[in-house]
Amino acid sequence: MELVKNMLSGDRVALAKLMSILEREPDEMPGIMEQIHSKTGSASLIGITGPPGAGKSTLIDSLIKSVRKNNETVGVIAVDPSSLYTGGALLGDRIRMNNHVGDQGVFIRSLSTKGTFGGLSKTAKATTRLLDSYGFNKVLVESVGVGQTELDIANVVDIVVVVLVPEAGDSIQLLKAGLIEIGDIYVVNKSDREGSDLLVDALSSELHERNGGKSWMPKVIKTSAKNNTGIDELLVEIQKLNDKLSASGELQKLRQLRIKHELKEAIRNSLDQMISLDDILHITGEVGKDVMNGSIDPYTGAKKLLSSGDLAKNINRRFNSTG
Amino acid sequence: MELVKNMLSGDRVALAKLMSILEREPDEMPGIMEQIHSKTGSASLIGITGPPGAGKSTLIDSLIKSVRKNNETVGVIAVDPSSLYTGGALLGDRIRMNNHVGDQGVFIRSLSTKGTFGGLSKTAKATTRLLDSYGFNKVLVESVGVGQTELDIANVVDIVVVVLVPEAGDSIQLLKAGLIEIGDIYVVNKSDREGSDLLVDALSSELHERNGGKSWMPKVIKTSAKNNTGIDELLVEIQKLNDKLSASGELQKLRQLRIKHELKEAIRNSLDQMISLDDILHITGEVGKDVMNGSIDPYTGAKKLLSSGDLAKNINRRFNSTG
Repeated sequence: MELVKNMLSGDRVALAKLMSILEREPDEMPGIMEQIHSKTGSASLIGITGPPGAGKSTLIDSLIKSVRKNNETVGVIAVDPSSLYTGGALLGDRIRMNNHVGDQGVFIRSLSTKGTFGGLSKTAKATTRLLDSYGFNKVLVESVGVGQTELDIANVVDIVVVVLVPEAGDSIQLLKAGLIEIGDIYVVNKSDREGSDLLVDALSSELHERNGGKSWMPKVIKTSAKNNTGIDELLVEIQKLNDKLSASGELQKLRQLRIKHELKEAIRNSLDQMISLDDILHITGEVGKDVMNGSIDPYTGAKKLLSSGDLAKNINRRFNSTG
Repeated sequence: MELVKNMLSGDRVALAKLMSILEREPDEMPGIMEQIHSKTGSASLIGITGPPGAGKSTLIDSLIKSVRKNNETVGVIAVDPSSLYTGGALLGDRIRMNNHVGDQGVFIRSLSTKGTFGGLSKTAKATTRLLDSYGFNKVLVESVGVGQTELDIANVVDIVVVVLVPEAGDSIQLLKAGLIEIGDIYVVNKSDREGSDLLVDALSSELHERNGGKSWMPKVIKTSAKNNTGIDELLVEIQKLNDKLSASGELQKLRQLRIKHELKEAIRNSLDQMISLDDILHITGEVGKDVMNGSIDPYTGAKKLLSSGDLAKNINRRFNSTG
């Protein structure tokens, strides 16, 4: 694809166009991924997650400045499933865009959450790889936290930064609900406000209880975009953790696990296309008929199909004929 | 399962326990569905969807009262992926619960969105069937609208009611984003407020442009929970549409399509369990090794596996041995 060549040689317009293709034409994705594959793996992939209102967008704006001060380049993807209603992601983009207009070392993009179910996660991963292959030193992926989105951020990035704010009285609840398992670094943002020390203490003691089986103790860092404090420190901590994981071989292991996930997902997607609603009755035969006329339920049907091996045979036949 | 027998004979505690099991132990689901299967199909399944703040919870509270006035029973499932952060669903539940305490003809339940990816949709469907089998005349399923959730409401219910409010200035945007395709009936809620007639007009003209390929023109109904107007009318319209779809055979067709979706999902889930991350390398063989060492990308790997038929063979072998 000409567009991929142009993107790899540094063409930003081609990069933007490829992102649109990944969003709108999922069938094009495998071909694009195949072409960029050998150029990926150099970028440091960093996830920024946390509840709405935690100030992720502003924090990322500050992080971009900090990364640029170090003469590194940075690509940003914002994944906000609430954007359809709140305009959040788009507004955030506009703020950040305005601050970095004309800077060739920065590229920012919001992912629309419209479209096929399950598509968001796929598109986010593919877009991350695209920014990686383009040559950005750092790729930031912003998403709202755990349990809310189709996107499991830990399967996309190397290091997950969880952002919380003091006034989110239910921050501790959020931690209990799963955020404590996924954070590699914690940020108490808007730390100029009341209650930030309490939150830092609560976080630290919660992290001592359990840290998701990590080999290191996640750092808790106070930041304030308003007073512009803590951002450089956060970036240093991210870099330190990255170096440490890289030296110990954990980063490599993490990325291997991610590839397994991606392979599984790629297989699942392809299988999914094979079992189309239109010909599901051909693939499922007599059992499918029984399900359709109501004499057995779909779950029993699936169990029968799989245990008899008939489904695999039918799919196999189809694979070989459609190969 | 003793619990299922008790539930089917009217035991509310058993019903609540089964719901918890469906939420927490997805492996139990097929067995439960098999047992209740012959008792399902009588309830009228109604989805209530719309953006956060549209007043869905209050509207449902009024609908419950209206259904009860007609001496019908009603089960309610609230699916709100934002509940983790806002407490929305739970708060809504509490309000509704308090209003219907002690009424054996009403059962209300929030679905937690925690847990496995893709689990929400499965649990919502299974819980709907459970309420159906228990014998409720109507089952209401509340969810935030389109593009936001893992739940495609149209695959769960017979009739989708889309709730909008005048002050949501972006209501028309929402419609363009997909809500106009899924609604069978539209509600302009909080119609005591300014702008409601404008919204009704905009809706009606948008519906004349396109109505998602429906054979009927979706009604637009003004409601106000505050003034308690429009609710009985809404219920009458739901019933009318239900009767019409039933008489024309469209309801039957819709339900058949839903069964196809469920069968596909059941197969997908079972396949998914077969391709576990732990033994994905056994199933994918040489191609899997190439993906893991980075010489090819996962998408190309999946394509190779499927077109060669090797994956199907390996899965087939596994199905037959684990059957």
